[in-house]
Amino acid sequence: MATENSQPFRHMKWWGWGHEEVAFDDSNKPGLWPYLRRELQVPEGAAHTKAVAFESVQLPEIKRNEPFLAALRTRLAPDQIVEDKRSRLIHAAGKSFRDLWRLRQGLITVAPDCVVYPHSEDDVVAVIRAAVQHQVVVIPFGGGSNIAGCLEPHDQAGRMVVSLDMGRMHRVLEVDTHSLTARIQAGVYGPHMEEQLAAHNVTLGHFPDSFVHSTLGGWLATRSAGMQSDKYGKIEDMVLSLRMVTPQGTIVTRTVPKCANGIDVRQLCVGSEGILGVITEAVMQVHPQPAHKDYYGWLFPDFESGAASIHECMRRGCMPVITRLNDPQKTALSFAFKTSKPPLKEAVGKVVKWYLGKVRGIDFKKCCLMIVACEGDHATFHRVRQESANVFRKHGGVYLGVEPGRSFQRAKFDFPHLRDYVMDRNIMADVSETATTWANLLPSYYDTRRSIEQAIRDTGSAPWVGCHISHNYHSGASLYYTFGALQSKGRELAQYLYVKKAAEDAFMRNGGTLSHHHAVGSEHIPWVTDDISATGVAAVRALKHGLDPGGIMNPGKILPSENPLETWGLPESVARQFNNTGK
Amino acid sequence: MATENSQPFRHMKWWGWGHEEVAFDDSNKPGLWPYLRRELQVPEGAAHTKAVAFESVQLPEIKRNEPFLAALRTRLAPDQIVEDKRSRLIHAAGKSFRDLWRLRQGLITVAPDCVVYPHSEDDVVAVIRAAVQHQVVVIPFGGGSNIAGCLEPHDQAGRMVVSLDMGRMHRVLEVDTHSLTARIQAGVYGPHMEEQLAAHNVTLGHFPDSFVHSTLGGWLATRSAGMQSDKYGKIEDMVLSLRMVTPQGTIVTRTVPKCANGIDVRQLCVGSEGILGVITEAVMQVHPQPAHKDYYGWLFPDFESGAASIHECMRRGCMPVITRLNDPQKTALSFAFKTSKPPLKEAVGKVVKWYLGKVRGIDFKKCCLMIVACEGDHATFHRVRQESANVFRKHGGVYLGVEPGRSFQRAKFDFPHLRDYVMDRNIMADVSETATTWANLLPSYYDTRRSIEQAIRDTGSAPWVGCHISHNYHSGASLYYTFGALQSKGRELAQYLYVKKAAEDAFMRNGGTLSHHHAVGSEHIPWVTDDISATGVAAVRALKHGLDPGGIMNPGKILPSENPLETWGLPESVARQFNNTGK
Repeated sequence: MATENSQPFRHMKWWGWGHEEVAFDDSNKPGLWPYLRRELQVPEGAAHTKAVAFESVQLPEIKRNEPFLAALRTRLAPDQIVEDKRSRLIHAAGKSFRDLWRLRQGLITVAPDCVVYPHSEDDVVAVIRAAVQHQVVVIPFGGGSNIAGCLEPHDQAGRMVVSLDMGRMHRVLEVDTHSLTARIQAGVYGPHMEEQLAAHNVTLGHFPDSFVHSTLGGWLATRSAGMQSDKYGKIEDMVLSLRMVTPQGTIVTRTVPKCANGIDVRQLCVGSEGILGVITEAVMQVHPQPAHKDYYGWLFPDFESGAASIHECMRRGCMPVITRLNDPQKTALSFAFKTSKPPLKEAVGKVVKWYLGKVRGIDFKKCCLMIVACEGDHATFHRVRQESANVFRKHGGVYLGVEPGRSFQRAKFDFPHLRDYVMDRNIMADVSETATTWANLLPSYYDTRRSIEQAIRDTGSAPWVGCHISHNYHSGASLYYTFGALQSKGRELAQYLYVKKAAEDAFMRNGGTLSHHHAVGSEHIPWVTDDISATGVAAVRALKHGLDPGGIMNPGKILPSENPLETWGLPESVARQFNNTGK
Repeated sequence: MATENSQPFRHMKWWGWGHEEVAFDDSNKPGLWPYLRRELQVPEGAAHTKAVAFESVQLPEIKRNEPFLAALRTRLAPDQIVEDKRSRLIHAAGKSFRDLWRLRQGLITVAPDCVVYPHSEDDVVAVIRAAVQHQVVVIPFGGGSNIAGCLEPHDQAGRMVVSLDMGRMHRVLEVDTHSLTARIQAGVYGPHMEEQLAAHNVTLGHFPDSFVHSTLGGWLATRSAGMQSDKYGKIEDMVLSLRMVTPQGTIVTRTVPKCANGIDVRQLCVGSEGILGVITEAVMQVHPQPAHKDYYGWLFPDFESGAASIHECMRRGCMPVITRLNDPQKTALSFAFKTSKPPLKEAVGKVVKWYLGKVRGIDFKKCCLMIVACEGDHATFHRVRQESANVFRKHGGVYLGVEPGRSFQRAKFDFPHLRDYVMDRNIMADVSETATTWANLLPSYYDTRRSIEQAIRDTGSAPWVGCHISHNYHSGASLYYTFGALQSKGRELAQYLYVKKAAEDAFMRNGGTLSHHHAVGSEHIPWVTDDISATGVAAVRALKHGLDPGGIMNPGKILPSENPLETWGLPESVARQFNNTGK
């Protein structure tokens, strides 16, 4: 049983995704590696590269601001302030490709000097006060799953750095089943939160890919989106009120559905990525556990017809809770995940494939798999399932039954493990996502795909680029790209940054945003001025100066330096080496 | 036809609501004045008080900052800079009770020194630049309908004040019917905007009471809500991107449905009430014109059953686009609006009343009228109408047919005229509104009603207090109070402030917000710290200092002074005169 001091969660492994004992297993997926090897042109028998041993990782020496630590010790118990190597390492980075590449190499040039675990908002206030007084940097830490560089201790001033791990503030404090609201501490992890909410027969409905390893506070600080955002909204749409401890005091907003009380202070805290303060709790809107729920697979002749069918469901008011449309490349990858089956099932599979190709005219090079989920009370569930199916059929969709959907559902939180698997095989792989209007969606899709592919070719590798549409709105949707390439030996990071830049540049060029739900962090800073305008940046800077005049909160995030691309790691001189080397 | 320089709108009368030639007419409402007179205990034959004549109004002398005016004249045409008395007077205030009371008395101690009409964003930039350079105060002006004191020229420093009237920036610039978005200039008035959108068969769906006399920019700056917000959302939910000219440059955000680009700069501009800059245009989500639409009346045995039925519709997913539930007092007022009818109809009405009372057991002292509107495509319209009707019946609702609904629909923008009518009769009348969770809704309703009634009694008058629930959300709803009392002669403003304070104090005490859709302005400043917390105020102040270091943008709004109640006009010494004078 969780006591005040216990941790009802475990941190992820220091060098990759998920818990230590869990890894991606391809032993029952005979087609996967051959598919990837062929697509990425991996030489036969290429060596694998594992992460260096924990013992061989060298962390920078600990900086101890003794007056600060003394102040902490007057309030916190010894087990709330830790500085062991594993804790520091786990809190040194998130899970972006750059993070993992460095971690796996043991190239840890920055790490927090200690990790502090508050048990209450009062603890947080005490830590922030002491940090202000003694000029110590504080980096709020949820589950450590961020892939936008929100967690790195980028202090230029050489101050002591504390990672403030919120994981012990993990309670659902109050559930109001009449208003359907829940007051929840920010450090709770997804599964533990849902477990507590389920005791009241409600759910938050927020299921990002990182669900198992991320927290409410992290979701709020980064404007996260869950897989079922089409029903439940993005995290910023679900929050009624919150509390955020800043160096200038605690922001407290009122639990009201809507208000007109000047600038929306609640929405200033959401998305602030730790640069203004630490979110300690929030009142979130919750929903009854749906009585009916199921997942399905649909196959569309091409990306256009799939996208058109989502658009039409939106217009007709029959949106399922998930419509995740894979493009042809991501569809091919999904098929490569197929597990080996008993002979009879294999035979049935061949008949189905024959039927799809010969009878239904599906071109397997162009076809697109869409995962659909419907849920709700009896009437809503059946109405939406029926009406959306009619729309899908109208656009040439072929129903594949529940199996592809349920297999997605079973594995839906496992996908991030795949990156460790491919990195073992010296493959650079990452994701970049944006959102844009319906009218811009397909032009943006094609241009971005072309740009990423070309950038990878520029670095001398064969590209794999896949995309899915997964969060849909009245006026547009998000595009979520996954890209991979054999690493360019000796210039792995530069290669990655070069490709990532091509993706983000394409988003900007096509009217999108730098990120739909991954945040700015440090990885997307080069595009923030283009995204929110120089005066928008000035507004954020004004907030930062006003609430954190000492600059102790999560420095180096969101706000651009004078030469952002250089700070980011890709000065023109480095980028130049790849130009015109494409094949 | 509207040319670049023409004004496709007319300002409201300087002393009241609506156009000069339009006034509230009770000649066909024989029951109205008797009802009000009885409720408010107005002495028989009490004198009427009209607004003073325009000619007798004395405006403060014009301050002319000549270098500023010279800079303006290099860019703007002579008809874009006006300083005639009527223009200054119209731009001197909004339409709160305090505004109108002063205007009607001719007590105009502050007024803008001139009114400037930009024709383009470049014009706005030129005005703001010149204002920054020459230290001139700028007050953005939409339709002038605000009732929270957002428009008064409160400059302490004695600088020249310009009212920046956006009314000539009135075009719908672009409609994307695939994405359902429209790029619209901020100065457009409601009807003219809908006319332009209707040419593309779309609607914004935003119909506040002030619709005829307010603008998109005003709605955005104050976080307005329309009558059909249950379907279309509040204005902050509809905005995809906007442009706002500030003293530090222009904020430009991207037209994307959702994003994770750090703090949401778009939501910093929305609700900023002119204190950071001037919104010049926005891309809004729009909707197809509904194919089916109708209004209905339902009668509930009491407020509880009506509120419960709205809550249940929300939970069952069958919310009409309007469910406006009047409490018993507001229901009685509605019935007092009844027009005189031919004898046959009168007789039918009597039969209906007999049926409701004797057969259906309706207690006319407790019963509550709810105006319901359904709209949408054929299937949605019929499904929601049918399912919501089932819910209403379950809670004891009696269907009154389309007539009460359609009569509401015909007169829906006329209600604000009523205040001029009662002010002619020396009656203080105003509105105050909040929002809270479903669990808090009824306790807040009763406590606030009692508080307002007691406050009015404290001032020596008989109270009339009515309330309706009109904007409904997953987690709660808004409460909209109207209150009236015979003016306390010689201390009319103090009486008003004393009563208004009682309403706002009750909102705060019951977990609500200072306003659901009327803004902070200067009228709600005494409650802003309680609403968003001192650190929340510090955040807003940081933005203000960062984007408007010279303090030229709409000073005296949102941000509290050191002694907010005194600045507001109700120091303790004045409030004390009313305590314990109640009857």
